[in-house]
Order: sequence, then structure tokens, then C-alpha cells
Amino acid sequence: MADPALFEFLHTEMVAELWAQDPDPGPGGQKTSLLVLEGMGFRVGQALGERLPREMLAFREELDVLKFLCKDLWVAVFHKQMDSLRTNHQGTYVLQDNSFPLLVRMASGLQYLEEAPKFLAFTCGLLRGTLSTLGVKSLVTASVAALPACKFQVVIQKP
Amino acid sequence: MADPALFEFLHTEMVAELWAQDPDPGPGGQKTSLLVLEGMGFRVGQALGERLPREMLAFREELDVLKFLCKDLWVAVFHKQMDSLRTNHQGTYVLQDNSFPLLVRMASGLQYLEEAPKFLAFTCGLLRGTLSTLGVKSLVTASVAALPACKFQVVIQKP
Repeated sequence: MADPALFEFLHTEMVAELWAQDPDPGPGGQKTSLLVLEGMGFRVGQALGERLPREMLAFREELDVLKFLCKDLWVAVFHKQMDSLRTNHQGTYVLQDNSFPLLVRMASGLQYLEEAPKFLAFTCGLLRGTLSTLGVKSLVTASVAALPACKFQVVIQKP
Repeated sequence: MADPALFEFLHTEMVAELWAQDPDPGPGGQKTSLLVLEGMGFRVGQALGERLPREMLAFREELDVLKFLCKDLWVAVFHKQMDSLRTNHQGTYVLQDNSFPLLVRMASGLQYLEEAPKFLAFTCGLLRGTLSTLGVKSLVTASVAALPACKFQVVIQKP
């Protein structure tokens, strides 16, 4: 009986519920559900960020903020660390998780790849929301090449 | 940075999202959102129940099953135990939580009482789903007299 499962099950139900309400969407319909999930993730990320210890809110380096996401945030939410973090040193970061918990229960055939985006939207929002509380405006997108690995691309928006 | 918050924040967002989609429902509309939440809770409860150690699936007494919900399930989900468990010894149980985590963040004026049901529906489903996996068919309802205390009434359905 474990907590990690609670979040995963709830996330699965949330995705299922949003797609059940919108079973055969047009090109715009699917996008609405993704936006809804991303928005929920953003607000949860913001709220989680607000519970951070004060000293974490004063990172000096952008890279420190990203390392914080890969370690502390990932462990708090997914009970593991991100597998790698790369950057072009110009405000773009690629965070790779080789076994992303919200994808591991999904069958790994190529035909399931197209289902993957709905299981990534919430987490994109979560990253963007936490960054927002840390004072960093960003765009976050995700991509999957081979299940259950995935990459999150964070592009920092300079003021 | 803590896990308990993750479930609470996600639950709050879920409620907000369902009511945002259905901002001014008729008498039937509100009920739909409650049913959706209850159904999500039911499936999460079922899934959590399936992760139980085998020996827990062989409770001999109905009362043991209810005690399990009040201790183990409540701790796993809400990080506290239920405050009291009463029964009429005829298949009806009243589980009281004097400070229910999903209600504590809510302001405690009387005018907020009518908002309470939307924060209880998921948990009613969670109890019913876990009981279902444990082989017990039930009806679960909740009531609030004074925030943030609430009572869950479980009526066992005899086969």
C-alpha cells in the first residue's frame, strides 16, 4: 500500500475522464484536453513550489534551478531522479527520463506512441508551474521516441 | 516539499476543473460532476486495493475490513488515522474524521458547508472501491456538520 501509486492512479483516471468526455474530438478537441491537463499541472507545480524552503527560492544560477527540478521535484513526485540533464547554454534544457513512471505501465509497442502525449501534458505543466514559482518563465514540451523513455524540453523565456 | 501535498493539490484541481466545465449546472448537472468524482475515486480505490498484501485480502470479519480502512488506507492516502469508527452491528458503519485533510484548507464559515460535498465525493468512491476489491459491496455517503470534521457512512450490501 503505497503513496506513489495514489498519484499515478489518480493521474490515469484524470486522463481517462478527460478523454471520455471528449471521445472523438476534432483537431481542436484533443488539444483542449491537453491544455486542460497542462493547466492543472501548472497550478499543482505552482502550489508545490510555494511549499519550498525559503533558501530554495534564491537560486543564483539558472542551472541550479534545473538541477533542483531533476532531483528534488522529481523525487517528491515520481520517487526517482531524472536520468540526464543537458543544455545548449543558451536557455534550452533537455531533461531525459529513461523510464518515466507515467509511461511505464503503458504497453511499449510503436502503436502506443501516439497515446503518449496525453500522459505527458500534466507533467509539462508541473515543470512550468514550479519554474514559475521559482521566478523563471518557460515553455515546456515533451517528446517520446521509445517508450517508456521521454524527454522534456525547457526553453527559458528571457524577460 | 512533500508528497501529501501532491495528492491534495491534484484533488483540488480535479474538483475545480470539473466544476469549471459545468459552471452553472441544473439540478442534474451538479450531480454529474459528483458522480464523475465518485467514479474516479472508486477506480483508484479498486486499484489501491489490488496492491494490498495477500493476507489482507482474507479478512475474516467485516469489522476487520472497516478497521483496515480507518488505519492503513487512511494513513496511505491522508497520512493520518480516522478518528472514530462506530457501528450498529447490522452492517452500518460511521467513520468520523475530525479534521479531514481535503476540508482543512477550506474556510470554516457556515456558508461554505454547501461547497463541502464536492470535496467528499472522490473519497466516498475511494472507500467503496477499496471495499469492492476486498470483496465487500457497499454504499458510501458522507456528511459534514462542522468543517473540517466529516462522517462517512458505509452501509454493507448483503449478497
